[in-house]
Amino acid sequence: MEYQKILNTIQEELSYRNTTGKVASYIPELAKVDPKKFGMHLYCRDSGHYSIGDSKEKFSIQSISKVFTLTMAMQLLGESLWERVDVEPSGDPFNSLTQLEYEQGIPRNPFINAGALVIADILVSNLKNPKTDLLEFVRKITGNQEIDYDLTVATSEKSTGYRNYGLVNYMKALGNIKNDVEPILDFYFHQCSLAMSCEELANAFMLYANGGILLENGEKILSTKRVKRINALMQTCGFYDEAGEFSFEVGLPGKSGVGGGIVAIHPSKYSVAVWSPILNPKGNSELGMAALEKLTTLTGFSIF
Amino acid sequence: MEYQKILNTIQEELSYRNTTGKVASYIPELAKVDPKKFGMHLYCRDSGHYSIGDSKEKFSIQSISKVFTLTMAMQLLGESLWERVDVEPSGDPFNSLTQLEYEQGIPRNPFINAGALVIADILVSNLKNPKTDLLEFVRKITGNQEIDYDLTVATSEKSTGYRNYGLVNYMKALGNIKNDVEPILDFYFHQCSLAMSCEELANAFMLYANGGILLENGEKILSTKRVKRINALMQTCGFYDEAGEFSFEVGLPGKSGVGGGIVAIHPSKYSVAVWSPILNPKGNSELGMAALEKLTTLTGFSIF
Amino acid sequence: MEYQKILNTIQEELSYRNTTGKVASYIPELAKVDPKKFGMHLYCRDSGHYSIGDSKEKFSIQSISKVFTLTMAMQLLGESLWERVDVEPSGDPFNSLTQLEYEQGIPRNPFINAGALVIADILVSNLKNPKTDLLEFVRKITGNQEIDYDLTVATSEKSTGYRNYGLVNYMKALGNIKNDVEPILDFYFHQCSLAMSCEELANAFMLYANGGILLENGEKILSTKRVKRINALMQTCGFYDEAGEFSFEVGLPGKSGVGGGIVAIHPSKYSVAVWSPILNPKGNSELGMAALEKLTTLTGFSIF
Amino acid sequence: MEYQKILNTIQEELSYRNTTGKVASYIPELAKVDPKKFGMHLYCRDSGHYSIGDSKEKFSIQSISKVFTLTMAMQLLGESLWERVDVEPSGDPFNSLTQLEYEQGIPRNPFINAGALVIADILVSNLKNPKTDLLEFVRKITGNQEIDYDLTVATSEKSTGYRNYGLVNYMKALGNIKNDVEPILDFYFHQCSLAMSCEELANAFMLYANGGILLENGEKILSTKRVKRINALMQTCGFYDEAGEFSFEVGLPGKSGVGGGIVAIHPSKYSVAVWSPILNPKGNSELGMAALEKLTTLTGFSIF
Repeated sequence: MEYQKILNTIQEELSYRNTTGKVASYIPELAKVDPKKFGMHLYCRDSGHYSIGDSKEKFSIQSISKVFTLTMAMQLLGESLWERVDVEPSGDPFNSLTQLEYEQGIPRNPFINAGALVIADILVSNLKNPKTDLLEFVRKITGNQEIDYDLTVATSEKSTGYRNYGLVNYMKALGNIKNDVEPILDFYFHQCSLAMSCEELANAFMLYANGGILLENGEKILSTKRVKRINALMQTCGFYDEAGEFSFEVGLPGKSGVGGGIVAIHPSKYSVAVWSPILNPKGNSELGMAALEKLTTLTGFSIF
Repeated sequence: MEYQKILNTIQEELSYRNTTGKVASYIPELAKVDPKKFGMHLYCRDSGHYSIGDSKEKFSIQSISKVFTLTMAMQLLGESLWERVDVEPSGDPFNSLTQLEYEQGIPRNPFINAGALVIADILVSNLKNPKTDLLEFVRKITGNQEIDYDLTVATSEKSTGYRNYGLVNYMKALGNIKNDVEPILDFYFHQCSLAMSCEELANAFMLYANGGILLENGEKILSTKRVKRINALMQTCGFYDEAGEFSFEVGLPGKSGVGGGIVAIHPSKYSVAVWSPILNPKGNSELGMAALEKLTTLTGFSIF
Repeated sequence: MEYQKILNTIQEELSYRNTTGKVASYIPELAKVDPKKFGMHLYCRDSGHYSIGDSKEKFSIQSISKVFTLTMAMQLLGESLWERVDVEPSGDPFNSLTQLEYEQGIPRNPFINAGALVIADILVSNLKNPKTDLLEFVRKITGNQEIDYDLTVATSEKSTGYRNYGLVNYMKALGNIKNDVEPILDFYFHQCSLAMSCEELANAFMLYANGGILLENGEKILSTKRVKRINALMQTCGFYDEAGEFSFEVGLPGKSGVGGGIVAIHPSKYSVAVWSPILNPKGNSELGMAALEKLTTLTGFSIF
Repeated sequence: MEYQKILNTIQEELSYRNTTGKVASYIPELAKVDPKKFGMHLYCRDSGHYSIGDSKEKFSIQSISKVFTLTMAMQLLGESLWERVDVEPSGDPFNSLTQLEYEQGIPRNPFINAGALVIADILVSNLKNPKTDLLEFVRKITGNQEIDYDLTVATSEKSTGYRNYGLVNYMKALGNIKNDVEPILDFYFHQCSLAMSCEELANAFMLYANGGILLENGEKILSTKRVKRINALMQTCGFYDEAGEFSFEVGLPGKSGVGGGIVAIHPSKYSVAVWSPILNPKGNSELGMAALEKLTTLTGFSIF
């Protein structure tokens, strides 16, 4: 079956009416999103673009941005990055502080909030204008100069981000945060507020499906080794404490965000992004998970 | 570079002299193994067999056996299996009891000891002669009728297996163990004592690299979906709390045992087994990890 | 107000009809006890005996027996006892295994199950006939030669004691259990099955209210220092994870059991035992807690 | 033996030379204190004042101040206070965040940092000038109008108080903090910086040894019930995760601070304060613990 037909089938079979979850409510701005939204975009390396539904509508990518900031930090620090954050699945809810106590402030991986905040600290240390540089990086790999932060969302996050303030202060007490708390969180709340559509996300993640090379112009952005490592991290840690479930049901490396977006890649084959704001109890898009499971079932291949 | 050359390079570059770990000592019989042993066998689906060192010498496969028993339990119970064991990485040392307390006796995955004991309980419930049936299954997929338990090892495990007795009793108190404690542990200590060589392990795991079909005769043993799920579980949970590290450095689904064996597969490409009894602090073969990392570096491809 | 009037007031004001808890059900024999039972006996050092209700009816003292076995172990080992068990409140449900993992098999105190099992192990190591010796000790301090184990209860405990089997095996794996598992648990299930009435318990605990001297005949059984330490342990650890609450509301050292008994002492003043089988969610007698709170309120003094 | 002789004996037998601990270093100002300092003051309700060493020298009372703020909060809120903080021992290091996760932001007791911060939040909510009111309360019960904050210490705490910032933010995320973070921590860092001598502390704590009545003028400040409850809390929770040890060795309700001070009371008999800045690994004054153990041994009585 070809990709467009598969996407059409997914659109027919899945409906927000059958979901049991809820739109994220802890950030006021996210709670306003229409739960009926549903979009999907698949970018095949060899045969191009396929999409359904609200695939061109921008949403808050939230934690998906952690893949971009990790990529930038790896480029800046190389292997020494791993002295400050580990690469193991967390086995705990995504905002847990427990593990930090037992492991001296070293977060388990760069995709839990604690780890992403250490990455933010690193970017604040090493870049003059981290917010501008992140935008530039994302615009470049997406091939779209208009991608931007949603400042209303960024402000909204800040007003209720006590848990993240708690995390940064706690890790600072444990010695794994170098900068002042405010610039780190300012950067972090901005990165989470990045507004992108499924189409833009699929374009951006083609970098990771294509071995670190920009498909549009052949420019080598990331070494093969680094791409593999980022993909491996998405496989084992990309879905909070549902990473095993996603790997088990879908079988692709991916990353989700509480805005309801999920992006996944099939190395050398395609990148795909899906968006539906209704979340399951673990904080991942309910329809998004189902859509990607259908995708790998109908295409007949996962990476396994 | 072709596989035999790559294996030769691995053999030249790795030496037990440079290790810092120790042979497993908690089971008396395992402590007697010569730490200098080193063997590796790669079975390529298209081009056949390659090996170095002690690849034909049998050793105690220990936790690698959990892949076989999981496969049998999936065949017996189907999806209902997942009501009794989860599919998430553990994030905790391999014999941890903590998680069970918070999750009502449901082990996080079938590859931690608690999970494997639930699998053993299931096989004891559903099979008349679980020890015989396991042998038969392993002999069949390996194509070798002489594979057997090492009864000295099985007895040795029993004499010091208090932790496993603790686990089974505790899960029985929590309602997730149905049979008496003794037959479950008798089966479990036997499965861990299975003696196989790298060559035999690579032969057996070709089943998982080849989509559930016995390469030798084309017999379909496992559905494609189940193979993918087992491979996904090996990817996210196969290495205790070093699963992320293995995925990050090697990028293949695999499973290790405290006997010093590691097996890994590259779906549709090859299965590979390596053996060196010296373990790193997380309980995985130190040289085995290094050998597989070199393998994917030198071959230039992981699944990512 | 004198003691008998206070007990009468307690009897009038408290009724099983107003309880919301349940009789212990995890041991089949305990589940059979009539929930309407209620008795109380106060033994004043200076003015003698006072009682109400079912104060002469025997019940299963369960964890209250841990005070007796601790006393015997202190007499046998002296200070070296504290290398194998700590003296800190647990902060965790009474059958938690978590803490043992982080503290290498050393239970937090001798009144949680793990600690009492280490004490049982010590008695099994140091006594030829621990079950006989315990009976003798309890009979002596109670002044009643007919106190005995309830063998039906002991057998009932064994049939469902998987959690305790789990604990002993786990601590054996961690090196803090020296004997075989069976004799330890046989002793432990017997100690828990001791059948005593409120009157007998108050008589026995006068030893701890009277500085280690048998009030009946002036015999010095325990050093003043040891009595104080046992009383301090009852104060901080006698009520599972409700020890703070009991200290806060009642203000006396005491010990409860899942059979619905509670015993408490006011040093140099009195010992008191109360029995009502209905338990609150933390596993302590609901009416027993209320009765003792009323007692210290109406008498106008706690140890604080 | 009379009290002055006992204090003299303590002074002779204890020396900072035999300690193995260290002065608190996490607050820069505290690290500057002379480790050789040692003072003790006992205030007997019936026979007056006794002292040795540096008993008139002021030091930073730190966590001892938590008893004062708890007293004020109990007076303001009555029983409803206990909806926001529990009364159980923590069983965890004093700055642990783990427990908060499992208990929805309700600290285990008012003497761990999290609990004291909730108390601070309550005072900030209910008082116009909490810092002034606290000073007034302490001055009143001590009978000394010159007691004051040490602003250098308060500033020093703020500069390194990331852990406390972490705690407050985290509890705010969980809904158990009502005010902005800054005024709460400003108040908290001030309360910890209170500078008092052993003599002043013994004077202040006579309130708790004397049933809530100011001994100097007979004024009833606290109800008997509240005094007993505060004393019970000091008994079970006053020494971080060494509360059991203190109860076991000393047998008095008390409270310690990382400035090296410890205060304890014997209800109806005396209050006593001791100061030596060298701390044991649990954060309590090493010589202070020893001095109080000697005191109850030599006087021959604890509350047990």
